[in-house]
Amino acid sequence: MESISELRRDIVSGAWVVIATGRGKRPHDFLKQGRQGFKQSKLTCPFERPESPPLLSYDNDGRTTENNWWVQVVPNKYPAFGKGICAVFKAAGPYEWAEGVGFHELVISRDHARPFGLMTDREAELVLRAYQARYLTLKDDSCVEYVSIFHNHGRLAGATIVHPHSQIIAIPVVPPDIARSLRGSADYTQKHGSCVHCVILKYETKEKVRIVYENDRFAVVAPYASRTAFEMRIYPKRHGAYFEIITDTDRLLLANALRTSLAKLANGLKNPDFNFFIHTAPTGESHQFDHYHWHIEIMPKTAIWAGFEIGTGIEISTIAPEAAAEFLRDVVAK
Amino acid sequence: MESISELRRDIVSGAWVVIATGRGKRPHDFLKQGRQGFKQSKLTCPFERPESPPLLSYDNDGRTTENNWWVQVVPNKYPAFGKGICAVFKAAGPYEWAEGVGFHELVISRDHARPFGLMTDREAELVLRAYQARYLTLKDDSCVEYVSIFHNHGRLAGATIVHPHSQIIAIPVVPPDIARSLRGSADYTQKHGSCVHCVILKYETKEKVRIVYENDRFAVVAPYASRTAFEMRIYPKRHGAYFEIITDTDRLLLANALRTSLAKLANGLKNPDFNFFIHTAPTGESHQFDHYHWHIEIMPKTAIWAGFEIGTGIEISTIAPEAAAEFLRDVVAK
Repeated sequence: MESISELRRDIVSGAWVVIATGRGKRPHDFLKQGRQGFKQSKLTCPFERPESPPLLSYDNDGRTTENNWWVQVVPNKYPAFGKGICAVFKAAGPYEWAEGVGFHELVISRDHARPFGLMTDREAELVLRAYQARYLTLKDDSCVEYVSIFHNHGRLAGATIVHPHSQIIAIPVVPPDIARSLRGSADYTQKHGSCVHCVILKYETKEKVRIVYENDRFAVVAPYASRTAFEMRIYPKRHGAYFEIITDTDRLLLANALRTSLAKLANGLKNPDFNFFIHTAPTGESHQFDHYHWHIEIMPKTAIWAGFEIGTGIEISTIAPEAAAEFLRDVVAK
Repeated sequence: MESISELRRDIVSGAWVVIATGRGKRPHDFLKQGRQGFKQSKLTCPFERPESPPLLSYDNDGRTTENNWWVQVVPNKYPAFGKGICAVFKAAGPYEWAEGVGFHELVISRDHARPFGLMTDREAELVLRAYQARYLTLKDDSCVEYVSIFHNHGRLAGATIVHPHSQIIAIPVVPPDIARSLRGSADYTQKHGSCVHCVILKYETKEKVRIVYENDRFAVVAPYASRTAFEMRIYPKRHGAYFEIITDTDRLLLANALRTSLAKLANGLKNPDFNFFIHTAPTGESHQFDHYHWHIEIMPKTAIWAGFEIGTGIEISTIAPEAAAEFLRDVVAK
């Protein structure tokens, strides 16, 4: 009897996932998940002429500009975190709380209908340059413990405005998922004397079955314990804990890897909704997180989290990452 | 300046959530989230006459029956876990995996268009009785480490069949979210000498601001660190780690608390989609989890998990649980 599914463990976070290959989905079965009818007129788009004075504005040569902007960063008008004195943790009966002190910014690229997958490498690099510049500014705020940079594409991924934009949220705590991965990474390094992500990367670039794309400095992998169908992770090939110190050369190659991955996703699966986010070490001057290996995670919205996933934290994926990688490898990235 | 949000910590799981009250949503703003157009004909419904011979079948007096069934349990035709020899954990390069060995069953109630919120207490009790009976059978399988019982209501909650049904999945590992809560519960008991959920319950039933409903044996609470808007937890007032040893009296009062909570949700917010699941101690004969306090969590689908939530594990809720509880307390439960 063929087995119905596999339980796979994420060796960094410790999480289990289920690869339910017995349910027998193939890449083309995911096509119907395409993003339908998420259109908004350019004429009324709030991101065509952002109202707030920008925190940063580059033209398409990467020069600071007031007019011909290609990428702008503005404060979010409806922030989840706001300015204040540094968070003070207080008790409320048996509970613990703090004010939501931090920053919430939007990174907006110029073209209303041209997401990452349709940009050139040079254009995508300017967006990453804006991420890096704001990261470097926000990390200097002494209240900030972690800076989360993420991108929502499509309604199912939580985007309410169609015009391509990313978000930067700077917060006064290290998020639980990051803390867990940091612990997993630290434990592995202590036990094996090497970075867990470097070990994964070495194994994957040799095995090749889960590699989606590679350039000189970055590898795009369908993770062994994928949390969603067609999940991808972009790893720098050289060890490093801190996204924010990426060099100019590497940033352009990261743009190439990110743009290529998203183009493959859009072309191969008819523009599905997705989120991507950067996982990097917390801010701060100590070297305690040097063992970490920063990377980008791309999570397509190919399924709904139901009671089992929400109640257990175990995600069920209906396509094996090996099949997803094989499919995505062959999709032309424009 | 009023604060934009609050960071609140779940003292059991250690997770942080954001209560973004600064975004200023009120209970009625959630009405538009109502479940639209999820209808399927009774004539073609696969649950009107389940094909598989039932694993269990009760009539509406709770007697085992072959014909006039009110609740039936059948094997899932598309299981995520299947029978096999006990899971053996194997290495694959640096990774770890096991076959997905376990059980996946469906608990189907008779009426095509009558979900929990529209049942009587007696009818809801029969569904809970089926949960308990199957739990007791499945826990005796020596491969089974955890039994997850959950219910998906509506498309956004992951239901693909409209006919009300719950699912039981028995798996060979303790899920990460359960493991985390068990650790949090054990740590609290060791540090403070009392059950963390008993402390919460005592505080909440005294404060009353987050209480939605109470009967003699159960309290329904909007959790202080709610993960979603209008989240509810149903706690047995008396300490106990094991759902499966619930008495007949308590089961009827649990049915009353669950049915009432779901009726309030449906009536107050125009039938939103939701998941609920039971959190209980892992199976096994040892008493190592006696510190735990089993409960039911009800999670309405009032928002989409976007890049921030997926990338950090921090959920942003746009209504305070105090406001949600106040609203739900006043909604008539039929």
